Amino acid sequence: MTQDEAKALVGKRAVEFVEDGMRVGLGTGSTSTMFIRALAARNAEKSLNIRCVASSDASAKLGRELGLEVVSLSELPELDIYIDGADEVDPQLNLIKGGGGAMLREKIVASSAKRFIVVVDSTKVVQTLGKFPLPLEVIKMALPLVTSHLEKLHLNPKQRKHADGSDYLTDEGNFVVDCYAGKISDPAKTADNVRNLVGVVEHGLFLGMTNLVLIAGENGVTELKP
Amino acid sequence: MTQDEAKALVGKRAVEFVEDGMRVGLGTGSTSTMFIRALAARNAEKSLNIRCVASSDASAKLGRELGLEVVSLSELPELDIYIDGADEVDPQLNLIKGGGGAMLREKIVASSAKRFIVVVDSTKVVQTLGKFPLPLEVIKMALPLVTSHLEKLHLNPKQRKHADGSDYLTDEGNFVVDCYAGKISDPAKTADNVRNLVGVVEHGLFLGMTNLVLIAGENGVTELKP
Repeated sequence: MTQDEAKALVGKRAVEFVEDGMRVGLGTGSTSTMFIRALAARNAEKSLNIRCVASSDASAKLGRELGLEVVSLSELPELDIYIDGADEVDPQLNLIKGGGGAMLREKIVASSAKRFIVVVDSTKVVQTLGKFPLPLEVIKMALPLVTSHLEKLHLNPKQRKHADGSDYLTDEGNFVVDCYAGKISDPAKTADNVRNLVGVVEHGLFLGMTNLVLIAGENGVTELKP
Repeated sequence: MTQDEAKALVGKRAVEFVEDGMRVGLGTGSTSTMFIRALAARNAEKSLNIRCVASSDASAKLGRELGLEVVSLSELPELDIYIDGADEVDPQLNLIKGGGGAMLREKIVASSAKRFIVVVDSTKVVQTLGKFPLPLEVIKMALPLVTSHLEKLHLNPKQRKHADGSDYLTDEGNFVVDCYAGKISDPAKTADNVRNLVGVVEHGLFLGMTNLVLIAGENGVTELKP
């Protein structure tokens, strides 16, 4: 099975968790896209009477194009379920997210949902988080201050740039700093450390938020529960 | 002594802490304005060879108009001293700031300075913080989520609006929520509670950051130290 096939498989499986009348959070990224496509197909086939909120403008646009009702979080502040991908998942269901730069909105949507289901292919499952860089969303004027503190914490920070060297900006107009931390042996402590830095808007560690992980691998979809 | 006279007095006293060649943070608000005016007057009289960073566009503009060299924090990421007002000060030198809506930038500048001196008139000194509303800077899309959590914490949140009913926005384009908390008996706990809410960018509690408070009252300027 290719990685794309795995993403399609797990996206389709996630649709089974969406029930008639639910308020659904749509995630961001390639696996979420597969879920959104599968959800829209099922909705077209058998009207599900669902309303959706998206964690990025791109996913909102895709959902609407495919016929889903996508509204803003202020219109629908509580969600029944949120389905999204992740960059890394550990056995305790802790995540690193934000490779796509949407970690802030993703965390807001995840916090608004009763149930958060993560969909990944098996390459995203790790024993210890940190091989994937930990992204932080940082207020522009605080960049030197934050970078200096992150260096003292040995988190090896690097400001995210576009290929042409220009600053990468989030939807909220903030910088992203990627921390090449190596192994994050105590995610809760790292989260506390970075959250307490003035100028850090949000970080990509999603701890204790996930209710279920669906993992697509060679033998189909397996489940990881808390 | 009127409140304006008190502000002028304490602003002038604060200038005595600025030494030749220092990198100086300029605060925001009416008492800071008095300090900026006094600093500029002293600099004009006896060139101090200082460079400044401001915690708001308004203070940067004022400083430049008065002949001070004001640069951005990215040009001058470390400061020797930061002088700013506060909305409330308690005997432990904990502060509430952000009535002016600049709490995020003020906290970033304060965190960048070796020494943080607060200048207030005696009406700002309280035994327990909380009579003044505690302001939070909140990401727009997270407003319903954050408001709901703040209500559960009994912090009595109210979104800040302009007189015409339109949304108040910070320099970063975020909402401000003012918490009419009454008495904040454990500021560290309240700070932890609000900092952990997804969608809260920053809060107006400045704890353990202040090195000295200069208070102008009927008998002149008194000092409060940790």
